[in-house]
Amino acid sequence: MAGKNAFYAQSGGVTAVINASAAGIIETARKNSDKIAKVYAGRNGIIGALTEDLIDTSEDSAAAISALRHTPSGGFGSCRYKLKGIEQNRREYERLIEVFKAHDIGYFFYNGGGDSADTCLKVSQISDTLGYPIQAIHVPKTVDNDLPITDCCPGFGSVAKYIAVSTREASFDVASMSKTSTKVFVLEVMGRHAGWIAAAGGLASSKDCEIPIVILFPEITFNKEKFLAKVDGYVKKYGYCSVVVSEGVQGEDGKFLADQGLRDAFGHAQLGGVAPVVANIVKDGLGLKYHWSVADYLQRAARHIASKTDVEQAYAMGEAAVEFAVAGHNSVMPTIDRQSNSPYSWKVGMAKLSDVANVEKMMPENFISEDGFGITDACREYLAPLIAGEDYPPYKDGLPDYVRLKNVAVGKKLDDFKL
Amino acid sequence: MAGKNAFYAQSGGVTAVINASAAGIIETARKNSDKIAKVYAGRNGIIGALTEDLIDTSEDSAAAISALRHTPSGGFGSCRYKLKGIEQNRREYERLIEVFKAHDIGYFFYNGGGDSADTCLKVSQISDTLGYPIQAIHVPKTVDNDLPITDCCPGFGSVAKYIAVSTREASFDVASMSKTSTKVFVLEVMGRHAGWIAAAGGLASSKDCEIPIVILFPEITFNKEKFLAKVDGYVKKYGYCSVVVSEGVQGEDGKFLADQGLRDAFGHAQLGGVAPVVANIVKDGLGLKYHWSVADYLQRAARHIASKTDVEQAYAMGEAAVEFAVAGHNSVMPTIDRQSNSPYSWKVGMAKLSDVANVEKMMPENFISEDGFGITDACREYLAPLIAGEDYPPYKDGLPDYVRLKNVAVGKKLDDFKL
Repeated sequence: MAGKNAFYAQSGGVTAVINASAAGIIETARKNSDKIAKVYAGRNGIIGALTEDLIDTSEDSAAAISALRHTPSGGFGSCRYKLKGIEQNRREYERLIEVFKAHDIGYFFYNGGGDSADTCLKVSQISDTLGYPIQAIHVPKTVDNDLPITDCCPGFGSVAKYIAVSTREASFDVASMSKTSTKVFVLEVMGRHAGWIAAAGGLASSKDCEIPIVILFPEITFNKEKFLAKVDGYVKKYGYCSVVVSEGVQGEDGKFLADQGLRDAFGHAQLGGVAPVVANIVKDGLGLKYHWSVADYLQRAARHIASKTDVEQAYAMGEAAVEFAVAGHNSVMPTIDRQSNSPYSWKVGMAKLSDVANVEKMMPENFISEDGFGITDACREYLAPLIAGEDYPPYKDGLPDYVRLKNVAVGKKLDDFKL
Repeated sequence: MAGKNAFYAQSGGVTAVINASAAGIIETARKNSDKIAKVYAGRNGIIGALTEDLIDTSEDSAAAISALRHTPSGGFGSCRYKLKGIEQNRREYERLIEVFKAHDIGYFFYNGGGDSADTCLKVSQISDTLGYPIQAIHVPKTVDNDLPITDCCPGFGSVAKYIAVSTREASFDVASMSKTSTKVFVLEVMGRHAGWIAAAGGLASSKDCEIPIVILFPEITFNKEKFLAKVDGYVKKYGYCSVVVSEGVQGEDGKFLADQGLRDAFGHAQLGGVAPVVANIVKDGLGLKYHWSVADYLQRAARHIASKTDVEQAYAMGEAAVEFAVAGHNSVMPTIDRQSNSPYSWKVGMAKLSDVANVEKMMPENFISEDGFGITDACREYLAPLIAGEDYPPYKDGLPDYVRLKNVAVGKKLDDFKL
């Protein structure tokens, strides 16, 4: 006899590998069909649960679910919607339980970052207070790499690889042009609070492929004079220089460097990125020709250059979440436990959600070089294995053959619910 | 007995595959060592010839030269330096001939776009007027895809593939987020005069993977109302929309849309891209949340996702250039002659430089859809084979293992020359 159904939802910003976790969950659930009947996915994340907009993943073939492993983005839709505390909005939690009851759901798999871990913790706690048993397992995902306990977060390794590869490629380009044209290339990357992604730009330079790279971390207050001196020194020595700047870099006034109060010709406020600001500082301060790029979504969606390590870990987290659930665990999150750097080895661990929720892991201070513009050997040792290996998607007509699921809706049994 | 030496130079903006042409030239010259003694490369393009800063490519191993095929950028350095006409600056041409004489150079291979073709033509003509025999062969290269006669230009196919892949990936991302967050994604691409690269964004949408994409071509004057209506319609139908905008899009006032007269808080002029301008128009006009990205150098340096067709054609152009030279041709350029679309087939052709120089090939009008925001089937048929196939570079420690040549200088025999 089959067990209860499972609910799965994707939460927050999507990544190149969050669907690999989804594949891990659904495929492992299918292998445990004696314990888990069906996996219902929330259409657009937790909103799908609240509005009873569930997707019956059993309507999609084994081939389609397997193709999730090589497809970026959130195959069931994600959302930015944070449940309040039970005290502030008990109605939403009660609604969740109503939907779980109506669809015989006994497992709650929530795939997201820090905020989602907190939601997952709360759901795990209401099974007692609201008298409906549910096992809530969090599946780690965030390009920000800021979840505690786990050594790294699925999604980060692929962004890191994209940024490292792109920085190397663009640096080769600017080096070629530097004699008579562009001398400084500026790449803006994600990471508002922590410099994990910016740090990955430093991997573009290696012992056998030295590249002058200045990294602007959100952890380090921007100092124009020191920055210009660093760039000037590199350009004098190498003829060119690359700058990797985190979107979260702040000036001495505590404001984001990106927030320059830009106005158009009519005086309307305009939102720009930090890359053009830094490029203008280089031009004004040193008179050098520059180019700049803003990677934005391209970096986190770039499944075509995903890290094999990252894909494997993302899948393993989904797989482990289901194994934890069928083993009877509740209120936990599978983790990536690093065993050694070289050769890199890791195994799946388990963390209590109460130790994960509301804890942000910052980058260690000893990962940033003394002058504040580069990464240390300790940082390299940490990052290097996370970008290792390629895991190319299949191609059709020159383009990655990403899957779109049927996403067949489960019949509604309840009244409408207003968010 | 060995023949004369050859000179090779890379010119203008570099690409993901210009080094593949270099590999084609050097490897084919090595196979014809009875006709061509050594290949000397100009360090930083034609400047290397003028300043007698020559690189002896025979100092690099067969493995290193072969690795050029998978290495982006200009392995010998490029430059933006346009020789004036012989009438305006006879001294530069005379200097070239002096350097060629001093180093027994009988072949001139110039790897570049339209301006370079013109320079190459002039060099081919001075062999008569200055009494020194030299065979000048142009090797086509430009991401702008604007050289005449040849069906396409090496470098373009790989940029097109990068933009098509990136647009598809980012579109999957924004589709996932659109329920509660970002609904419009804007990607800025190169192409100041012609919309070839912007058009490639349209390939991201295909029959089996439909994506709502609005393309802003430099050929079409930007009309805010029509643009907003198009985006609004797509967002209402699909829930999201991607916009691919060429850096060269102009408004009805004839000014670049990117040139919005931006000023910072102190009133200083700031250079921004066109992507944030378009994103702000979407926000102001429709109130939709957006993200934007500027690909810049990333698009033309992205050897990691190069088109196999493009790599093969780039190599073939270098190979053919040497074959033309040893067969006695002068003042010509190898071309890519399309034989059929499906299955795609092409062969190497030959164009007279006098037919190539100073002719810019624009995108045919029937490649842009009637409303001005998309590509036609004719455009798809043209573009599709150019992005076909993958040609991954080797990786080491998670990063592409791109080669850096030794670039050993040839001993100088002449007095210094002031540019």
